Amino acid sequence: MALADTRFSDRRRKLAAELAGQRIDAVLVTHLTHVRYLSGFSGSNGALLLRKDLSALMATDGRYTTQIAQEVPDLEAVEGRAVGKVLLQQFDDAQSPVRVGFEADYMSVSELEDLKDSAPDGVTLVPITGIIEDIRLTKDPVELEKLEEIAAIANQALEDLLAAGELRAGRTEREVAADLEFRMRILGSERVSFDTIVASGPNSAMPHHGADDRVIEDGDLVTIDFGAHLRGFNSDCTRTYVVGTANDFAKEIYDVVLRAQQAGVEAAVAGTSLSDVDAACRTIIADAGYGDYFVHSTGHGVGLDVHEAPFAATTGKGELAPGMTLTIEPGVYVPGKGGVRIEDTLIITDGAPKIITAASKDFTELPA
Amino acid sequence: MALADTRFSDRRRKLAAELAGQRIDAVLVTHLTHVRYLSGFSGSNGALLLRKDLSALMATDGRYTTQIAQEVPDLEAVEGRAVGKVLLQQFDDAQSPVRVGFEADYMSVSELEDLKDSAPDGVTLVPITGIIEDIRLTKDPVELEKLEEIAAIANQALEDLLAAGELRAGRTEREVAADLEFRMRILGSERVSFDTIVASGPNSAMPHHGADDRVIEDGDLVTIDFGAHLRGFNSDCTRTYVVGTANDFAKEIYDVVLRAQQAGVEAAVAGTSLSDVDAACRTIIADAGYGDYFVHSTGHGVGLDVHEAPFAATTGKGELAPGMTLTIEPGVYVPGKGGVRIEDTLIITDGAPKIITAASKDFTELPA
Repeated sequence: MALADTRFSDRRRKLAAELAGQRIDAVLVTHLTHVRYLSGFSGSNGALLLRKDLSALMATDGRYTTQIAQEVPDLEAVEGRAVGKVLLQQFDDAQSPVRVGFEADYMSVSELEDLKDSAPDGVTLVPITGIIEDIRLTKDPVELEKLEEIAAIANQALEDLLAAGELRAGRTEREVAADLEFRMRILGSERVSFDTIVASGPNSAMPHHGADDRVIEDGDLVTIDFGAHLRGFNSDCTRTYVVGTANDFAKEIYDVVLRAQQAGVEAAVAGTSLSDVDAACRTIIADAGYGDYFVHSTGHGVGLDVHEAPFAATTGKGELAPGMTLTIEPGVYVPGKGGVRIEDTLIITDGAPKIITAASKDFTELPA
Repeated sequence: MALADTRFSDRRRKLAAELAGQRIDAVLVTHLTHVRYLSGFSGSNGALLLRKDLSALMATDGRYTTQIAQEVPDLEAVEGRAVGKVLLQQFDDAQSPVRVGFEADYMSVSELEDLKDSAPDGVTLVPITGIIEDIRLTKDPVELEKLEEIAAIANQALEDLLAAGELRAGRTEREVAADLEFRMRILGSERVSFDTIVASGPNSAMPHHGADDRVIEDGDLVTIDFGAHLRGFNSDCTRTYVVGTANDFAKEIYDVVLRAQQAGVEAAVAGTSLSDVDAACRTIIADAGYGDYFVHSTGHGVGLDVHEAPFAATTGKGELAPGMTLTIEPGVYVPGKGGVRIEDTLIITDGAPKIITAASKDFTELPA
């Protein structure tokens, strides 16, 4: 537990340091992902009050009193269903006005009204945005290890599916998705991190196609975009295969997307701007004449959310730093003909990025 | 499509009628579940502006222009990423002040600030809460049919699992959950409606246990709480079985919970108060001496959300009416010894409720 305690208190220290600069005396953390990030508590109702002097208090309801004591041994917890209200009551006997930050990007207008109505006199609620997300940008070694672990589970499931010959003509997209999800679950995944995409034949030209009753046919491009989830952490990976014998179009766009993806991976080093990472992929696709068919951005961070900062896009702001994660997932989608997307999740390091989505990206024609 | 059009416009008419009573000129619907409910649009970015004269306009971004034309043939759509902002621009040339309702329970404080900053002069944003939820309380025949369809898919998966002998000693909880989820997927479910619970032996005494690596043993109580999801609609059902030979404690609490559950079902008729439905279950459990071990409320509605109004609880407000749905799910959880929960989803009718979760509730000892 000593290691875990330090991680959570380190994060709280970073947050408290930011508060000091904003004339905020304390922050009320209510977004559950952030409560978990800053304390380790994984229940479905809980909040954290962190003061600028680093003292902190949790709240949860009766269902989770045992769990919170186990998961957050270093902090006291008060009990109540309305966790925000309970925590603000700590300021009941405050001798001077108190400015308390709340998470404006996640708190609903109704929730804020309720909080204001019940807050003790002298408490002013101040919106904060983006501060905790900025701290989350750079992952610590334990987080990176957990991200590698869940990425490896998802990868093993995909490789088992292929080895079993179960991505083949005659199966529906839904059957392949269900099969892959089953394999991830058996290997330890708690749930999918997003709805699995199995997009075959003409459906592969739709970047956000799900997985439906279309029967996979000999010669189809099949794009599989899938993720697993374990103890808060997500994975994200895409591979495209040909089932049976590929036509020239499939070979051509696969080659273009793979070269773009590799260029994106090479560009993903500390110090590079996110817009330059996007450009590294986009230029290759545009030069090959498919620029109009790459209709989304290049990548995003992966962590407690499956889509989180940083964002590699044409308009991406900021630059990469060691400890960040980033997907590189260019695609080409030609309506009526088919599409290819190839996606890795990377960990940014001091040198070359570490790819944690291990499946081969070599052009592959699977037995039909 | 004619049928669908009428359903959506009927709902919009009900909403518009409520607005008139609140001196609101239009409502901006941004909660995606409600956008879908009022228009049929199922994409991940969209909003609806409904004026009190029943004229309505949609907004979505370029990814969904084709989809929205197909799903919402009766309404025009404008294009833009910031869908709320785009819709408010309709009031750019308003000749008089306009009061526009927004969904305060779902809109974040930041989103409201952005909307206010971009709203044309003369637009006043007014919080609305609970109005659409009240309309959703009573389901129309098409909704009920879809709820029956997804409940039947989930039920078939459970019955197939049992018939295959795959709920047995030697399997882990996780394996059973993965197996059941796979069967639901193959039968057409798009995803689980919540994380599947397979709580065996001592874990059955924890009402919110998930499904972990515990190996099921001969003599275990095993509670399975599971749901499927199809085109917006959810299912919810719980059954408890004994794997192998039951001890007297298991038999006793199963009998108590089943009698309580049956009493709850019998009480679930139109005109009965929600607190009385709760009491019908709770009294039987209390009379059997297990009142302290029934630690949650009796039930909830099931629809576009897997947990929605009405709520059958000690403090439940209002009464049942035809077309509502309700789960009846009493449980007894004795730490260290085990637990039982039995849950049906009901449709409230003019007569006896219709149970749409068909699996047998007879006390069952499965082959170990």
